[in-house]
Amino acid sequence: MFADTRTNAGFDDVSTYRKLRIYETPGERVLAVATSGNLSVTQMALSVLAEGLLNPDTGELETLEQAPTMFRAAQLIGHAIRKVKQDLEAGLEAEHVDTRVSLLLGGQIRGGPMRLFMIYDAGNFIECGADSPYLQIGEYKYGRPILVRAVRYGTELYDALKIGLISLDSTIQSNLAVGPPIDLLVLRRDALCSELNYRIEPDEPYFRELSDRWSEALRAAHTNLPRPPYAPPPLLEATIRPLEKGGPV
Amino acid sequence: MFADTRTNAGFDDVSTYRKLRIYETPGERVLAVATSGNLSVTQMALSVLAEGLLNPDTGELETLEQAPTMFRAAQLIGHAIRKVKQDLEAGLEAEHVDTRVSLLLGGQIRGGPMRLFMIYDAGNFIECGADSPYLQIGEYKYGRPILVRAVRYGTELYDALKIGLISLDSTIQSNLAVGPPIDLLVLRRDALCSELNYRIEPDEPYFRELSDRWSEALRAAHTNLPRPPYAPPPLLEATIRPLEKGGPV
Repeated sequence: MFADTRTNAGFDDVSTYRKLRIYETPGERVLAVATSGNLSVTQMALSVLAEGLLNPDTGELETLEQAPTMFRAAQLIGHAIRKVKQDLEAGLEAEHVDTRVSLLLGGQIRGGPMRLFMIYDAGNFIECGADSPYLQIGEYKYGRPILVRAVRYGTELYDALKIGLISLDSTIQSNLAVGPPIDLLVLRRDALCSELNYRIEPDEPYFRELSDRWSEALRAAHTNLPRPPYAPPPLLEATIRPLEKGGPV
Repeated sequence: MFADTRTNAGFDDVSTYRKLRIYETPGERVLAVATSGNLSVTQMALSVLAEGLLNPDTGELETLEQAPTMFRAAQLIGHAIRKVKQDLEAGLEAEHVDTRVSLLLGGQIRGGPMRLFMIYDAGNFIECGADSPYLQIGEYKYGRPILVRAVRYGTELYDALKIGLISLDSTIQSNLAVGPPIDLLVLRRDALCSELNYRIEPDEPYFRELSDRWSEALRAAHTNLPRPPYAPPPLLEATIRPLEKGGPV
C-alpha cells in the first residue's frame, strides 16, 4: 500500500499530510488505512475511531486498534465516515465543500486472513480479489493503464511495488496535486508485522531514476513501433511529397 | 484529430455514433469538430449550426460551414451549445441528466492560420499552442501520461498520430465506455485539404498489433528497471528469508 502526501484546498493552499496511517502490534496485527478526498472528513473519522465509536448493540466503545477482524475494522471505518459526514453536512453544504472521501483498509489480524478493502462514502465497501488484484482511490485514472497491463495476482511483491511506483509517478507527472513524499507499506501474508514501512522523500535517487528511466523506456518503446500505414489512395500523390524523408508511406 | 465512437446512456445502452465531424471544401477550408459529453447536446448544437444561428447584430443566419475565420467558428459553436443547453435546461435538470459537453474544433480557412480550440460548456474556449501542443476532451486521464512524456511541438505528424493511438488504446483498455471504431483526420498546415480521413475498424490489424506490441514493450520496460532498494534495517534478518530466491535485497 502506498499514498502520496499532497493535499490542497485550492491551488494556493497546498500542504503535506500523511495519508497512509499504520496501526501495528507486531505478531498480533497490522492495519493500514490510505485516505483520499476531503482531508477533514478522513482525519476526523480516524480520530473518532481512535477515541472509540459507540456500538449501539453492546453499549461499548469500539476502536480501530482493537477491532476483532478486518471485516469489523472496515465496518467501523464506514460508520465513522458516515457519522462525521452527518455531523458536518449542514455546515459544509452551505459552504459548497466537496465532502466525498474514499479509503483503503488493508492488513491482517491474528487468526484471520489478510484482506484489502475499498471503503466508500456511504460506509459500504468492496474487497480486493484475485481477478482484480489491486485497488486505487483518489486521482486514479492517470496511473491505471500500467496497472491494467502489468499487475496480476501472481506478480512478485517487489515487482508490484515497482510497477505501483511507476503508476504513481505517471500520476505525479500529470497532476500537480499529487506529489512526494510517498509513504509505503509492504506487508506479507501471515507475517503480522510490516516488512517495509518507508517514506520516499522528494530527492530520493531510486524514485527519480525510476521516473527518468521509465521516460526513456517509453520513448524507446514508441519509437520502435511502426508508424500507422494509413494513406488515402486518391490523395497519395499530393500527400506523399512532404513526407519523403522519413515519412509514413 | 481523432475520436472514438462509443456512447452510452447507461451500461445497458451502448451505441456507436460518429464523434468526429469533418466539414471540408478542398482548397478552401477544412474544419473538424470532435465532441464529448452529452450526445444530444452536441448533436443538437451541430444541427443548429447547420441550419444557421441568428446573429443579433446583423440579423443574418450564420453556419459553421460559412464561418469566415476559425475564431468565429469557435464562437459559433460556443453560442450553439449555450442556446441548446438553455432550451433543454429545465427538462434535463428535472431528469437529473448531466448536460456537460466539451468539444475540439480544429482546422484552417483559406487566408487564416491553422488553429485548434477546446470549447467548454459555457461557450468559452482556449487555443492549443507550442507549450501544450495537444488538447484532449472527454475521458482524457487514462491516456494522458504517454502524451505528457512523448508529444512535443516538433513531434513528426505521423509519430504524433502513433502516440495518439497508443494513448487512445490505453483509455480503451481502462474504460469500457471508450471503444473502436476510431475516426481520424490528419491535416497539414496550409494544405486546405485533409491528408488522411480514415476510420479504424475494430478488427484493424495495425491497431490491434499496436496494442499488443505496446503491452509487450511496457512489460519489457518495467521488467528491465531495477526493483526498489528499500529494506528496513532492523527487520532485515527477519524479512530477507522469504525473499532469498530472486528477492529485492
